[in-house]
Amino acid sequence: MTPTPTPAYSVRVRVRMVNRPGTLGRLAVAIGDVGANIVGLEGFVVTGSHLTDEIVVYCGSETHQQQVRAAIDALPDVEVLEWHDRTHVMHRGGKIEVVPSSPLNDQDDLAMAYTPGVARVCMEIARDTDVSYEYTIRKNTVAIVSDGTAVLGLGDIGPEAAMPVMEGKAMLFKHFGGVDAFPICVDTKDPDEIVAIVTALAPTFGGINLEDIAAPGAFDIEDRLVAALDIPVFHDDQHGTAIVTVAALHNALRLVDKKHEDLKVVVAGVGAAGVAVSKMLMAAGVRNIVGVDRRGAVHTGREDLNASKQWFAGNTNPDRLAGTITDVIAGADAFIGLAGPDLLTVDDVKSMATDPIVFAMANPNPEIRPELIADIAAVIATGRSDFPNQINNVLAFPGMFRGAFDARARKITESMKSAAAVAIAEVVGDAVRPDYIVPSVFDPRVAPAVAAAAAHAAREDGVCRP
Amino acid sequence: MTPTPTPAYSVRVRVRMVNRPGTLGRLAVAIGDVGANIVGLEGFVVTGSHLTDEIVVYCGSETHQQQVRAAIDALPDVEVLEWHDRTHVMHRGGKIEVVPSSPLNDQDDLAMAYTPGVARVCMEIARDTDVSYEYTIRKNTVAIVSDGTAVLGLGDIGPEAAMPVMEGKAMLFKHFGGVDAFPICVDTKDPDEIVAIVTALAPTFGGINLEDIAAPGAFDIEDRLVAALDIPVFHDDQHGTAIVTVAALHNALRLVDKKHEDLKVVVAGVGAAGVAVSKMLMAAGVRNIVGVDRRGAVHTGREDLNASKQWFAGNTNPDRLAGTITDVIAGADAFIGLAGPDLLTVDDVKSMATDPIVFAMANPNPEIRPELIADIAAVIATGRSDFPNQINNVLAFPGMFRGAFDARARKITESMKSAAAVAIAEVVGDAVRPDYIVPSVFDPRVAPAVAAAAAHAAREDGVCRP
Repeated sequence: MTPTPTPAYSVRVRVRMVNRPGTLGRLAVAIGDVGANIVGLEGFVVTGSHLTDEIVVYCGSETHQQQVRAAIDALPDVEVLEWHDRTHVMHRGGKIEVVPSSPLNDQDDLAMAYTPGVARVCMEIARDTDVSYEYTIRKNTVAIVSDGTAVLGLGDIGPEAAMPVMEGKAMLFKHFGGVDAFPICVDTKDPDEIVAIVTALAPTFGGINLEDIAAPGAFDIEDRLVAALDIPVFHDDQHGTAIVTVAALHNALRLVDKKHEDLKVVVAGVGAAGVAVSKMLMAAGVRNIVGVDRRGAVHTGREDLNASKQWFAGNTNPDRLAGTITDVIAGADAFIGLAGPDLLTVDDVKSMATDPIVFAMANPNPEIRPELIADIAAVIATGRSDFPNQINNVLAFPGMFRGAFDARARKITESMKSAAAVAIAEVVGDAVRPDYIVPSVFDPRVAPAVAAAAAHAAREDGVCRP
Repeated sequence: MTPTPTPAYSVRVRVRMVNRPGTLGRLAVAIGDVGANIVGLEGFVVTGSHLTDEIVVYCGSETHQQQVRAAIDALPDVEVLEWHDRTHVMHRGGKIEVVPSSPLNDQDDLAMAYTPGVARVCMEIARDTDVSYEYTIRKNTVAIVSDGTAVLGLGDIGPEAAMPVMEGKAMLFKHFGGVDAFPICVDTKDPDEIVAIVTALAPTFGGINLEDIAAPGAFDIEDRLVAALDIPVFHDDQHGTAIVTVAALHNALRLVDKKHEDLKVVVAGVGAAGVAVSKMLMAAGVRNIVGVDRRGAVHTGREDLNASKQWFAGNTNPDRLAGTITDVIAGADAFIGLAGPDLLTVDDVKSMATDPIVFAMANPNPEIRPELIADIAAVIATGRSDFPNQINNVLAFPGMFRGAFDARARKITESMKSAAAVAIAEVVGDAVRPDYIVPSVFDPRVAPAVAAAAAHAAREDGVCRP
């Protein structure tokens, strides 16, 4: 079966066609016959007996791209002039650049930006390091730190291979939050070394966003950096995911008219994200959470638990449920999936309480395909952009650091995270529907709302520089 | 005595004046009377009986700024509405920003730049790390690394205080070379730690520019990083200065019709820059170099020399001259000052050979004031922008890394540096005059010429990725 066509495997093709009615139609039929989607057509330039078109085609894989190519090549009246993999084009040379934010046009500019004028600013900072938050990029700049050990769902692919993700994250920071962010991919997996490197880099940055670092090292690194540094440190895989999940659940509960206190929630996946989501849910009032890992429900009777899961077992699963996910999901009000594809069956969902809420957030393949439970679940969310209710960290992290910088916060507090979750939920407001419990990633109201809420909470918490 | 007015201490003042002939004249006289220079006037807005002007005034110090302010405040018909220190304004919030270089307008862009499309690029790099030079910012990005131990002439002011300089350098990299550069100021002075940190950061960057790190640690750090890394490493304080000095001497010798082989050159200052300049001069053919440090001429008979100066003593000063600079400069053809203010006297210059060449490059105050020897020296150069012949590293480093990246060079070779020096000299070409031996910093021909020469040399040397 051909995989679903997606922009991730899209191509931009410039073709030269015989200028005869029906040629474009035959081209479109040929592309459609091999299961690809034409989503754009432009550049209609007629040159005598021929014309050139530029078309954008979604494919499902690289093999599928070649099938499309073969189908076009087989047409006698069509010639491929250019063939570009759009994802490759976008990444070529990297996706961010570092540009001056002040002019540099003459000797005056040079004398102020660089020597001798710069020495004045240097000496002010030398006298009082805090001035660096006013006169350097620290005021607005985050390091996106990764060791490449847990990149997306790809695992330990190394720091070089992690760079495209961190560069993408830097784009999102700037685009949505006006935050300058720079990737820092380090060639070591040793938590001690990572802590030492990031601590040494602190003079350059005003905030640290940890990213795609494997658990349990990630917990340790975050804890130690929070203790060592006087700037916000945020592990997005944990806290970003938690904030958006809590926001989504907030609105889902309004739809099914249930309260946090009364819920039974099953969380599949007890890694960094699962633990962070559970902690934030508890802070929001949820009392009955059951975590499930590859070996089944996490409870205090198990002897195969690492330190993080031991804490989890001691603070969740009040009824000490054991067994598989099928064993424990009966009667649950909500399922939160942070694990992997096809973990949940239709019968599992049928066994849940009335109006079940299913967040199947594994990416790209969710714990259960939404279409299978469309008539059973009251609310469904995923991590994908091609289904409704995308639980996407980008709703949280740009606004979170925007707010932290605006407030000159020294750290990210629990109430900043809770305030951010409420702010995301409130952007949806009374427009809430089963297919609209979180705002669109491109909703321009989100980042400012998160920033304002987080900044306010930071000031209330008294963690800000004067 | 009031220091010379400079853009580094300039102010932008918005004033409201009574709309009566002569008021602006009185304002200008008042500013001139306290020794400041009006260099700009704009925003002539008349509002009935008053008008507002915006004026730019060069001052000589912060105290002098306050004298100007007091002089204006004393005028009955003039009111200061706004008062901005232009250098502070330029540095506020930092001087660089990180921006997306691809669009991010819709779900398609997001799906290609970030998940799921980015995973394709990640996996290609995971299979072959070299692909990271094609699909990440490594292709075009330099880390500007400093520990803040030798910032400008300010000494060890710390990594936070070094940031404004490194940000300024990043501006210059982009403006002149199209090179993306990011400051990495580290909170450690330990060469071992600096080497470890920069080595760990290599997956993020395609080149390393070391900056303002105190000698002799800087030599050690550079040597070890060159050995450890497969990307260009360049210590600008050494090699940038050397390249531009050699370029300037090249053209100066054309004017006085002398050859490198026949010269006696006195180099004042035997730190990082002095050693690097001397090495490049030797490579250019100079046989007789005498170095002078605070204790006098460096020769093999001295027992107070560190490792670097021992090497220097063993490879220079063939006549084993000893004594002060006054003792050794007699008969010298060229003086190269990389030391400090007022080291050289007029009589010293008078004792040199015919047509003496004096490069007094200490900044901001040269080894001898150029106006004192205008009639004695054949060619004079300094490090300042307000005298002719500014020997400025910015002529070298943007083009050097531009060329290294264009050629996919794995390192900076000696012949790349020599080629860069010749390229800078050749931009001046037959227009060479005693007050024009190096191009202007803003000459748009320089960086492309340096880049082309360095890239060609890198390819000749066989140090490029395929």
